[in-house]
Amino acid sequence: MSEVAEALALIMRGTQEILVEEELVKKLESGRKLRIKAGFDPTAPDLHLGHSVLLTKMRQFQDLGHEVIFLIGDFTGRIGDPTGKNVTRKPLTEEEVKANAQTYREQVFKILDPAKTEVRFNAEWFGQMSAADMIELAAQSTVARMLERDDFEKRYRAGQSISIHEFLYPLVQGYDSVALEADVELGGTDQKFNLLMGREIQKHFGREPQVVITMPLLEGLDGVNKMSKSLNNYVGVDDAPGVMFNKLVSMPDSLMWRYFELLSLKSNDDIEAIRRDIEQGANPRDIKMTLARELIARYHGDEAAANAHRSAGNQLADGELPEDLPEVEVSFDGATEAPIAAVLNRADLATNSAQAKDMLKNGRVKVDGEVVAPSALLATGKSYIIQAGKKRYARVTLG
Amino acid sequence: MSEVAEALALIMRGTQEILVEEELVKKLESGRKLRIKAGFDPTAPDLHLGHSVLLTKMRQFQDLGHEVIFLIGDFTGRIGDPTGKNVTRKPLTEEEVKANAQTYREQVFKILDPAKTEVRFNAEWFGQMSAADMIELAAQSTVARMLERDDFEKRYRAGQSISIHEFLYPLVQGYDSVALEADVELGGTDQKFNLLMGREIQKHFGREPQVVITMPLLEGLDGVNKMSKSLNNYVGVDDAPGVMFNKLVSMPDSLMWRYFELLSLKSNDDIEAIRRDIEQGANPRDIKMTLARELIARYHGDEAAANAHRSAGNQLADGELPEDLPEVEVSFDGATEAPIAAVLNRADLATNSAQAKDMLKNGRVKVDGEVVAPSALLATGKSYIIQAGKKRYARVTLG
Repeated sequence: MSEVAEALALIMRGTQEILVEEELVKKLESGRKLRIKAGFDPTAPDLHLGHSVLLTKMRQFQDLGHEVIFLIGDFTGRIGDPTGKNVTRKPLTEEEVKANAQTYREQVFKILDPAKTEVRFNAEWFGQMSAADMIELAAQSTVARMLERDDFEKRYRAGQSISIHEFLYPLVQGYDSVALEADVELGGTDQKFNLLMGREIQKHFGREPQVVITMPLLEGLDGVNKMSKSLNNYVGVDDAPGVMFNKLVSMPDSLMWRYFELLSLKSNDDIEAIRRDIEQGANPRDIKMTLARELIARYHGDEAAANAHRSAGNQLADGELPEDLPEVEVSFDGATEAPIAAVLNRADLATNSAQAKDMLKNGRVKVDGEVVAPSALLATGKSYIIQAGKKRYARVTLG
Repeated sequence: MSEVAEALALIMRGTQEILVEEELVKKLESGRKLRIKAGFDPTAPDLHLGHSVLLTKMRQFQDLGHEVIFLIGDFTGRIGDPTGKNVTRKPLTEEEVKANAQTYREQVFKILDPAKTEVRFNAEWFGQMSAADMIELAAQSTVARMLERDDFEKRYRAGQSISIHEFLYPLVQGYDSVALEADVELGGTDQKFNLLMGREIQKHFGREPQVVITMPLLEGLDGVNKMSKSLNNYVGVDDAPGVMFNKLVSMPDSLMWRYFELLSLKSNDDIEAIRRDIEQGANPRDIKMTLARELIARYHGDEAAANAHRSAGNQLADGELPEDLPEVEVSFDGATEAPIAAVLNRADLATNSAQAKDMLKNGRVKVDGEVVAPSALLATGKSYIIQAGKKRYARVTLG
């Protein structure tokens, strides 16, 4: 396989759509170091593995020798929602943007190679742009074209109001590609419209249009819904090594290929080899452990990855304390004692009150290593190591 | 009648709509000097009496003691049509805007009182506006609201493209009212949507909304179609006194009240008195002469107005030369002689060739005072005073 064909095969892995593939081939054949753009909201990042799909693809481009631009859209973030209707989209201050950017940096450089990454902020060019320039930019698309965008069309049909400035944001995002001289832009499938707008704006400014690559949304651990914190089917990038390990090793076997495809930095050949192992009778659990170790190493380092199986809850039955015991504080508002069921519930060691009572009744809850009665009361103002069932444990401080 | 009621009666004369009348009454009652805004295109003005309807209303406000703002929309004019599709809307240079503004000044101060007029250019505030401010402005209206505007709605339904920047222009016009602290904005009926937008933008910026007054389009001399140069039913502000006189005196009697209402600065009482004269048998022609003199005085001074009937074409049958003989040059590309019919046609002394031949056949064409034959040839390189019919005449130089 030629070098370009091999690069293309890696780039295409897991993608939803490439527009236009022929153009991508040409750009790869040029031998140039390509500029790969991906834009991120400047709002507080609360990241899970679903967000790393894009970063993984960016890293693959870096491994192929290209330059990645991690763009933080602070310009629009600092405008917020000028209609004042959306209270959750308050304008961000410069300090908030900086703090969020710092969080991003810490997280994304666990995947990206800093030496091949430009971190940019679009206020750099939009902060200087005049109203007249914005009008010229607005002339580059039409009302009908904007109303082709799925969400706009649905809202328009449903009689929900669309503010004019919302039509400007895709153009702003498109102009970013001009300012950054992007060769390729990556984004989620929901970003397709905006990414294609970049191509149109680049053409207007006499540039070669970028190739648009959309990535699918990662399924959560249930293998059905997209990964999301609210559905509790996620692996957080902040999850402790043992927690990551447990979550990843207990996912359905059918899901593991999807995770390899979208999250692993292994080569296509390596993944193919693993597939063959499975066909020849390897235990899927071992394969999932391989995946878990790669991802844990990414966020917690190689040593944590090597020891994750030890710190995972499934080893606690032996009386071991996990190495990365989560710390939880629960307040009981001045009470001197708190019922153990309520503590489990509030400390998130049980899914709900019914499950807490159930575990207590079955003697599956230990406080400081001792099984406790369902009616036990814990004194406040102290800390306890609480273990609920095989996998849930924490150092709980009662306030 | 109270002072406010009297003012209101004058302001209301000839208007199409006042939004909202109660608010206007309040503003008048406040005793403040109100700020009356009207916006004009910075494109080359080619004015006729139809354009003076607005100026007449502005002057009435001045006569009532208020301040008029003659706004030239140079900001958008200097952007032109950024889609590049509309070649007739090329961006204007600063020099072109200045030159056009000068022409406006010469014309409008024939009606407006310079001491009570501010001439302003909206690049003054928009030239300094940032892209971020423009986005905030864009947030002040919705797509659905814009598509309520007649022309947008028609184009959208017909599948004709509407560029996004076209949605920004009504907002720009609206913001002008904020910058100018307008109490009242005047415009043609076709401007109603944009004028009302000013109210919304003012409210957003915490200002008292302006009262919107729309004026109807003036009927042309035919009394049917709106006045327009292309329909040749117009009185140009550059027309010579005699030409104005003839055009105005020959309009249908039924039309003269409309012209009094929309173009005259006479008081309501004076116009009422003229109506009574007519009811008591006055000759409508005399009334039209009164109107003509008022309008001629406006553009050419009192003396020209007093003499206009003498210089008008209907006196030429007596052999008099008009005082303001139009000068016309017609080139015959090196020919030594030109047929009289072609000269009439090219010098615009006949509507078309057929009419030229008709007048020649009937002996109604005089060259230097002598009736000429239909087959007459005129030597080039010379000037002739040519009279065609009763009312058309010119000094024609043949090149």
